[in-house]
Amino acid sequence: MRPPIITLTTDYGTHDHLVGAMKGVMLKILPELSFVDISHHVLACDILDGALTIGMAYKYFPPKTIHLVVVDPGVGTPRRPILVTGDQHFFVAPDNGVLSMVYDKEESFTVRHVTSDHYFMRPMSNTFHGRDLFAPVAAWLAKNQQPMSFGEEVMDPVRFTLPRPRAADGKVKGVVLKVDNFGNLITNIPPDLIAQAFLPEGKYRISVGGKEVPKVLNTYGEGGPGEPFGILGSAGLLEISVNRGNASRTLAAQRGVEVVVELL
Amino acid sequence: MRPPIITLTTDYGTHDHLVGAMKGVMLKILPELSFVDISHHVLACDILDGALTIGMAYKYFPPKTIHLVVVDPGVGTPRRPILVTGDQHFFVAPDNGVLSMVYDKEESFTVRHVTSDHYFMRPMSNTFHGRDLFAPVAAWLAKNQQPMSFGEEVMDPVRFTLPRPRAADGKVKGVVLKVDNFGNLITNIPPDLIAQAFLPEGKYRISVGGKEVPKVLNTYGEGGPGEPFGILGSAGLLEISVNRGNASRTLAAQRGVEVVVELL
Amino acid sequence: MRPPIITLTTDYGTHDHLVGAMKGVMLKILPELSFVDISHHVLACDILDGALTIGMAYKYFPPKTIHLVVVDPGVGTPRRPILVTGDQHFFVAPDNGVLSMVYDKEESFTVRHVTSDHYFMRPMSNTFHGRDLFAPVAAWLAKNQQPMSFGEEVMDPVRFTLPRPRAADGKVKGVVLKVDNFGNLITNIPPDLIAQAFLPEGKYRISVGGKEVPKVLNTYGEGGPGEPFGILGSAGLLEISVNRGNASRTLAAQRGVEVVVELL
Repeated sequence: MRPPIITLTTDYGTHDHLVGAMKGVMLKILPELSFVDISHHVLACDILDGALTIGMAYKYFPPKTIHLVVVDPGVGTPRRPILVTGDQHFFVAPDNGVLSMVYDKEESFTVRHVTSDHYFMRPMSNTFHGRDLFAPVAAWLAKNQQPMSFGEEVMDPVRFTLPRPRAADGKVKGVVLKVDNFGNLITNIPPDLIAQAFLPEGKYRISVGGKEVPKVLNTYGEGGPGEPFGILGSAGLLEISVNRGNASRTLAAQRGVEVVVELL
Repeated sequence: MRPPIITLTTDYGTHDHLVGAMKGVMLKILPELSFVDISHHVLACDILDGALTIGMAYKYFPPKTIHLVVVDPGVGTPRRPILVTGDQHFFVAPDNGVLSMVYDKEESFTVRHVTSDHYFMRPMSNTFHGRDLFAPVAAWLAKNQQPMSFGEEVMDPVRFTLPRPRAADGKVKGVVLKVDNFGNLITNIPPDLIAQAFLPEGKYRISVGGKEVPKVLNTYGEGGPGEPFGILGSAGLLEISVNRGNASRTLAAQRGVEVVVELL
Repeated sequence: MRPPIITLTTDYGTHDHLVGAMKGVMLKILPELSFVDISHHVLACDILDGALTIGMAYKYFPPKTIHLVVVDPGVGTPRRPILVTGDQHFFVAPDNGVLSMVYDKEESFTVRHVTSDHYFMRPMSNTFHGRDLFAPVAAWLAKNQQPMSFGEEVMDPVRFTLPRPRAADGKVKGVVLKVDNFGNLITNIPPDLIAQAFLPEGKYRISVGGKEVPKVLNTYGEGGPGEPFGILGSAGLLEISVNRGNASRTLAAQRGVEVVVELL
């Protein structure tokens, strides 16, 4: 028997007892649960950052993994709690768009409005549905494996469009989606849009916030000291990096900065 | 068979190898242990912050959970290591008051001075009893389930009084106990002391460090941009918050600041 | 049956989804794995800091534990992935010296160049071998327990010499190896080199970066407010500490600062 796996993605941080309380609630329902923390450092109340975090991680987990995603500025308001059944995974989250990147990646999925409130904690707070609603729903799902028991299917989940690159006049314009722990700038530009930039003889010009990025390299280790370069990152997107350095600081570039690739 | 659960609450941080070493020690004694980190970011050597962290979290865990709490500025001095058997949970900690909020919440409990040193690591350091004493005691307790084997009961555990709100002349005066990850100010004022403030037609005046908090709301989402408000927080206490903002920064208020609720 | 244990030591931080993705990959291969995070806050690309982190922690884990150590500035370049079989533990890491302290501590060990690429993820990135190479190798090793299946033994692993103290003219000169979460300065000076400093009547003079450290104490609790002192730390090395304070700030001392103990 495989132990049921629940992953957690939140903006709760790890300084407070909040994540611990959620895990306690779930273990009371099903003690043999196995937890994996994906991140508790989603930017506070930032649904886009939450969508990217779960979207880049969930496919690496085994089938039937339950992904609990709580970035929930609307806690206590009428925003719906939802349970999503995807191709191979389950997701439990508020219906605020935080699963948008999951919807983009899944072949097919169904979304249920979680209304079976006998699964919820009593009394239920208005401020911590991570503990009182989402955690018990995830644990009961791990226990009963019956998504249908949680509520009716809905056809109109909140879904936003992730920023997409635009190609025109031999230029591809994108943005920095995320700055990672090493200061790498993860853009929204997939390599097939700029294939020429990855060829040894390719001619191109790359800029980030107007600053030139002179090269595209295959590995971090090829970069010279302090020199920013493009590279195919592990999310399958163009990244801007500095070998043993911090591209975000070198280029003074944060999330949202424009990235332009001109193919010559 | 339920796997035994040990929770960890420390001020060790997560940058060093300290928490990993503690878990290794425990897994050597009982490999099937399941760990939950409540927080390793208790303020360094701050027994009150430790007491609040474990006090707000432990009840959410299953019966028989062992809570390991190591905030231990007196490590190596004669302060006693203790093992507490509460209504449903066990606690292993230094006897310095860090379990004061647990004592407040439990119906009944017994405290044992842990003296059975055959459970301790040899050699034992004077600086890291988390690894050398508290971790093995917790793991052996998980294994043998015999609290009596660890030492004699004592009647005088160190216990401090958590700051209590005072009510007089139609005013309730309390303090900020804790600032959470979102900048919410968790006060020590329970809602029943200021029930009127939570009524739709209630008349009241709230101030934090002398600054006015104009409203009490039911959900974070109702708050206007940058506007501080009171709310019933998930710990069952009055909280001061700013919707998608940071009340601690907005009000320049930290732990210990006075909170006054005047009922009009 | 003991569940297989894999520890993780990386410089990936915990803000991104990287560590979660690694664990997902491993759980897909062996769902009953038990993970322990030693630290994900090794200083970025800092092989010495990684070597100290795993070197100070691994011995506390049960036999057969697999230690996954990914501090890998050369990811994607020809640096070798290696699998090390020590006296009681396994290690999976890049061959860049990050296991140097492990080699120093083990009685005997064999190092294998991991070349059996059917264990690797396909497609494999050039930027995230933690997920695509090291994680699956660790999980397959947990599953098959056959180190020989991963590649041939090599005799020339990269190994650097940890900074060693020098003793001459009645002085022992060492350095600060690491500053811990509490601001304690962990030096590279073992107590037997300066035994006299730990005796009640011992005469000695200690300085850190030219600043005097007046005393050696047995416990943190004996230190006066703001007063730096030496103490035998939990890693078995001389530490410089301030009771309920931060020696690194008090002495303005960071990693690499010289520590001199003069025996009088």
